[in-house]
Amino acid sequence: MPSFSRLVRFLARDGRTYYGDAILPRGVTDISKARQARVVQGDIFGKHDVTDQIVDIRTLLAPLAPEHVRTVRCLGLNYAAHAKESNMPIPQYPVIFYKPATSLTGPTDPIPIHPLAQQHTGLDYECELVAVIGKPCADVPEAHALDYVLGYAVGNDVSHRDWQLKLGGGQWSLGKGFDGWAPFGPGIVSGRLLADPQALGIRTRVNGQTVQDSRTSDMVFGVARTIAFLSQGTTLMPGDVIFTGTPQGVGMGRNPQVWLKDGDVVEVELDGVGTCTNKVEFTPARDAKL
Amino acid sequence: MPSFSRLVRFLARDGRTYYGDAILPRGVTDISKARQARVVQGDIFGKHDVTDQIVDIRTLLAPLAPEHVRTVRCLGLNYAAHAKESNMPIPQYPVIFYKPATSLTGPTDPIPIHPLAQQHTGLDYECELVAVIGKPCADVPEAHALDYVLGYAVGNDVSHRDWQLKLGGGQWSLGKGFDGWAPFGPGIVSGRLLADPQALGIRTRVNGQTVQDSRTSDMVFGVARTIAFLSQGTTLMPGDVIFTGTPQGVGMGRNPQVWLKDGDVVEVELDGVGTCTNKVEFTPARDAKL
Repeated sequence: MPSFSRLVRFLARDGRTYYGDAILPRGVTDISKARQARVVQGDIFGKHDVTDQIVDIRTLLAPLAPEHVRTVRCLGLNYAAHAKESNMPIPQYPVIFYKPATSLTGPTDPIPIHPLAQQHTGLDYECELVAVIGKPCADVPEAHALDYVLGYAVGNDVSHRDWQLKLGGGQWSLGKGFDGWAPFGPGIVSGRLLADPQALGIRTRVNGQTVQDSRTSDMVFGVARTIAFLSQGTTLMPGDVIFTGTPQGVGMGRNPQVWLKDGDVVEVELDGVGTCTNKVEFTPARDAKL
Repeated sequence: MPSFSRLVRFLARDGRTYYGDAILPRGVTDISKARQARVVQGDIFGKHDVTDQIVDIRTLLAPLAPEHVRTVRCLGLNYAAHAKESNMPIPQYPVIFYKPATSLTGPTDPIPIHPLAQQHTGLDYECELVAVIGKPCADVPEAHALDYVLGYAVGNDVSHRDWQLKLGGGQWSLGKGFDGWAPFGPGIVSGRLLADPQALGIRTRVNGQTVQDSRTSDMVFGVARTIAFLSQGTTLMPGDVIFTGTPQGVGMGRNPQVWLKDGDVVEVELDGVGTCTNKVEFTPARDAKL
């Protein structure tokens, strides 16, 4: 078991980047409200200590450093009402696709929209419970699966519906894998604090208006069942990140359909974890640098 | 440009694991024939040296160490005749899916078939040219794309057609992502030696019988065009591995269909690179170890 309660990674007022255990005022559980943290030293997946050193947080970063992330798996159609609004069947087995690690970004970073994704239509949000794997996990039974979870975060599986569904040959990763299209955080809450990941409210707001509002109890495959299934023949590794699917209310499922625009502010929120607040930012192409 | 010609990673007779530059007899280009290598020291993606130290190779390993692999991308339907045998259209844009890094394995390792993949039918082979990215690559034009390639290998995109196509909700990764289902190697040949990756013969043998035999000139999207397309808004990183699709002749496309069995030996071969020879090995489930 990790010794932290709420793991954050942050840029401190002293200009350095730390892992820390977020300090929250009594009664507050949204990690995005943290202004200070106790520095965590050592291997977050192994031997580590929550020290007595308290540091001021300037900016919360993606809660895993790039070198600590391995594979990012995502579940599709994992809430029955979302499968219905997508005109797709409720899956018999978990539907799995991947995002590259470069899609992960922090809880307050802008979501960059590359010119390729400004073409066509269908820029959409998806709030999701995110489970982070803490130790190697192979053929685990469902009853023990949550023992392999480092903790939980909330994430936004940003999606471009035309590139995802119409232009990618039916494979979803292309329209979901752009740089910065998987904001997550604001921290990683230990399973000690969140014993039941299936009992949490989850929601999205766009420019302050609630557009998704559901509960993780509505998942088709809960976190434990998902991990048990995925770990069959495929070893899940420390630093693997699992986005567990989104509930109903996405822009694609609305009538008429509603797409994100340049400047929109998207908040995804998970009870007991907190909020990621990310601004949609249309960008130019980047210069290739050799 | 890397200073090596044919990067190998190997277990040496002295019991240690090295990166090296394979030494081949004059006129031989198949890296799997290498018995010695000059030790490579330093960062294979950055400053490194091919030293004068010559070491005996005991076993060639996957040519990238697990800590040097990042994202494994794969192209689907990237040879017209294979799209046709799969009853799918020739794609308008590259069709992208992912394998986890845990699927990568070496050029002589067995391919473990977990009980989950022994169920249903459809165990199949796919020989592919594999491109390894050598430096960060964002929005590169096609004309410069090959400058970002560390080198080329051959790989086998092992696939279970029922889990890939019928039981995974239409997303292919589940039936292609098991541990050890992406043998690649036998080494990584620098672009200095393989100036045109689109002019190579590529083939598969099962138990010595040729079942795929094509040329990389038949790719729908060549390596340079693929990298240019993929790097739009998605930064490709050093250690990213791209499986560039398989030609016609897979077991699924035969009449009657032919599936791999326990004990079958699969060889995938790419001219100028060499051969991976992997035995199909049905395995029991693994014990979960906490």
